[in-house]
Amino acid sequence: MTVSKPFSFSVLQTDGRARHGLVRTARGDIRTPAFMPVGTAATVKALYADQVREAGADIILGNTYHLMLRPGAERVAALGGLHEFMRWPRPILTDSGGFQVMSLAKLRKLSEEGVAFQSHIDGSRHMLTPERSIAVQGLLGSDIQMVFDECTPWPCEEDAAEVSMDLSLRWAERSKAAFAAQAGLGRALFGIVQGSVYPRLREVSARGLVDMGFEGYAVGGLAVGEGQERMLATLDATVPMLPQDRPRYLMGVGTPEDIVLSVLRGIDMFDCVMPTRSGRHGQAFTRFGRINLRNARHAEDPRPLDPESACPAASQYSRAYLHHLFRCGEYLGPMLLSWANVWYYQDLMAGLRAAIAEGRLEAHCAALREAWARGDRVD
Amino acid sequence: MTVSKPFSFSVLQTDGRARHGLVRTARGDIRTPAFMPVGTAATVKALYADQVREAGADIILGNTYHLMLRPGAERVAALGGLHEFMRWPRPILTDSGGFQVMSLAKLRKLSEEGVAFQSHIDGSRHMLTPERSIAVQGLLGSDIQMVFDECTPWPCEEDAAEVSMDLSLRWAERSKAAFAAQAGLGRALFGIVQGSVYPRLREVSARGLVDMGFEGYAVGGLAVGEGQERMLATLDATVPMLPQDRPRYLMGVGTPEDIVLSVLRGIDMFDCVMPTRSGRHGQAFTRFGRINLRNARHAEDPRPLDPESACPAASQYSRAYLHHLFRCGEYLGPMLLSWANVWYYQDLMAGLRAAIAEGRLEAHCAALREAWARGDRVD
Repeated sequence: MTVSKPFSFSVLQTDGRARHGLVRTARGDIRTPAFMPVGTAATVKALYADQVREAGADIILGNTYHLMLRPGAERVAALGGLHEFMRWPRPILTDSGGFQVMSLAKLRKLSEEGVAFQSHIDGSRHMLTPERSIAVQGLLGSDIQMVFDECTPWPCEEDAAEVSMDLSLRWAERSKAAFAAQAGLGRALFGIVQGSVYPRLREVSARGLVDMGFEGYAVGGLAVGEGQERMLATLDATVPMLPQDRPRYLMGVGTPEDIVLSVLRGIDMFDCVMPTRSGRHGQAFTRFGRINLRNARHAEDPRPLDPESACPAASQYSRAYLHHLFRCGEYLGPMLLSWANVWYYQDLMAGLRAAIAEGRLEAHCAALREAWARGDRVD
Repeated sequence: MTVSKPFSFSVLQTDGRARHGLVRTARGDIRTPAFMPVGTAATVKALYADQVREAGADIILGNTYHLMLRPGAERVAALGGLHEFMRWPRPILTDSGGFQVMSLAKLRKLSEEGVAFQSHIDGSRHMLTPERSIAVQGLLGSDIQMVFDECTPWPCEEDAAEVSMDLSLRWAERSKAAFAAQAGLGRALFGIVQGSVYPRLREVSARGLVDMGFEGYAVGGLAVGEGQERMLATLDATVPMLPQDRPRYLMGVGTPEDIVLSVLRGIDMFDCVMPTRSGRHGQAFTRFGRINLRNARHAEDPRPLDPESACPAASQYSRAYLHHLFRCGEYLGPMLLSWANVWYYQDLMAGLRAAIAEGRLEAHCAALREAWARGDRVD
C-alpha cells in the first residue's frame, strides 16, 4: 500500500517550454495546462456547477475579497465550507483578496500591516492582512491558497514597483507562517511573483519566493493594461526562474490567444472572468473566433455556434435564437453563452494538453490561430 | 393499423366535478389537470427547455403578442417554427395576443376590425385582428391556438361587459373561419368564454361559443383583480355550461390554492407566470407554503427547500446558499428558484391527477392546504 502525497505536481510531457502535467489534490486531480472558471461569489455566474464540471473543468477559482464580505468566511465555514456551500466537490483555488481590495474597496489604506478598507457593498470596515487572508481562505476550505500580495498597478515606475514588490515578499513570508496552521490538511500555498515589467525586480521576487518555498508559483501583476508584448516579455524573463517541478499560474489571463502564447512559455494554470463575462454580454468564443450575438446579422442565421462542439449550448441552438434571447434580455442568453464559452475554454485547454503530449504544439497553435483569423461567416 | 385523431381529449376519471384526462396532440400527450409554464418570448425564463420537461410539463404556453413583435412570426416560421426555434419539441399553446395588446401596447385603438397599436418595445405600428392573430399562431406552429378576444377589464359594468363579450363572440367566429386555413395539420382552436362576473353574460358567451364548436373552451377575463370569491363563483356558473368532452382552460391562474379550487370545479388546464416570476424574485413554492429566500432568517439555514423533492434545486442546495445568491444578485438564484417552482407546480398537478384517479381528491386537497398553512419553520 502506498500513501500518496496530498498535494503534488508532476510534469508528464514537455514540448519546447510548454508542459503537460498533473496536479493531485485531496479533492481530485487537475490536468495542466488548466483553465479555472471564476466563481467569484460562490457561483460561476449563470452556470450550474454540474455544467462547469461537464465542460471539463477540474478546478474553479473563488474570490476571497467577495466571499469574506458576503456571505462571510465564518458563515461559509459554519455551513460546511465553500465546496459544500456551492455544491462543487472538486478543487478550489482562492485568490488572496489583494487584487480586489485595491480595485474594488472604498477608502482603502495600505500599511505594512495590511489593507484597511470599507466594503464596496455596504461600507462596513474590514482589515485584510496576510494572516487574515490565509485565515479566510482556510475557513473557506480552499485547496490552493494564494499569499496576500499587493498587485502592482500599471503603469508603475521602477522605484515604486520595487517598494511594492518588497512589501509583497514580506507579506508572502507572513502568509506562509500563517498557513502553517493548516498543515496536514493536504492544502497548498502558492507564492506570487511581482515586480511589474522590470526583469530585475521579477528576479528578486522570484528568488525570494523560491527561497521561502511554495507548492506553486504564480506570476502576478500582469494583464493589468501593460499590453501583450510586455506581458510575454515579462513571462520570458520570469518563468525560467521558477522551479521546474512546481505548477506555474498566470493570474487573470486571459484571451484564448494570450493563453496559447503563455502555455508556449511554460505556464500551467490560468483563470479569467472572460468566458463568463463575455458570455453575459453576448460574445461567444468559438473555434472560428469571437462572435457578437447582439449583432443584427445573426437574426436569421439558423446555424449553431459550432455544430461539432460537444456543448449543447454551442451545437443545438441557432445563432438566430441566441440573438433573439440577448435582444430580449432573457436569462437564457447569458446562460447559454456562458456555458458555451466555459466549454470552449476547456476544449482549448484539452487540445493544448493533447498537443503537448503528442509533441505537436507548434503546429496545433498555428492551426488554432489560423481558424480564429479565418472565421466562419458565410456572407 | 389504426389512424389516431390528431387532436383529441378523453376524460379518464372523475372525482366530483374534477376530471383527470388526456389531451392527445400530434406533438405528444398532455395529462390533465395540466399546468403550462409560460414561455413568453420563446423561453421559459431562466430555465433550459430540458428542465421544464424533466419537471413534468407536457405543454408550455407562448405569447403571440411578444413573439409577433420579437423576433416576428414570419421570422420564426422561416427558422422552422417556434418548437424548433426554442428547442421544445412538445405541445405549445399560444394565446391570441388579446390580453397583452390591451395591457402592454401603447396608443392602442380598438375597433370592430381589431386592435391597432404601437409596440411597447420600439413604438412600431401593428394591427391585431382575429385573422392576423390566427395567422401569427399558425406561423409559430402552435398546437393549441386561442381565438382573438377582448379580455374584459375589472371592474366593468354589466353593459360594458356585454358589449365587450359580444365583440369577442364575433371575433371568435372570425378566428374560427381564419383557422380553417390550418385544417389537416392536427392543431386545435379553443374558444374563450367572456362576460366578466355576470352569469347571464357568461351564459350567452358559453352558448355562443359552443354553438360555433371548438376543440376546447377557456374561461377568460378572470384573475384580473376580481378576487378569489368572485372568480370561483364565476367558475361555478360557467363550467357547467361547457361540454363534458372538451378540455377546459382557466387562463392566467394562478396560485397553488387557486389551481386546487379550480380543479375541484372541473378545470383541466392552467397557465401562469407565477412560478417563474416569483422564482426570479426570491419566492419559493413548497409543500409547506411559500418561502421568501430574501428574508435574513434564511442566511444560516442549512436545510434545502424540500429534502423530499425530486428537483435538484429544491433538495440539493441550502436555503443559506439560495439566500446568498439573491443577496448578491447572482443569475443562479433565479435559475434555481424558477426550476424549483416549475417543478413544484408540476408535482402539484401530478398529485391532483393521482388523487382524482384514485377518488380521494377531497382528502388530498385538505392535506395540501393543511401543509401549506403549517409551514416548516423550526424557530
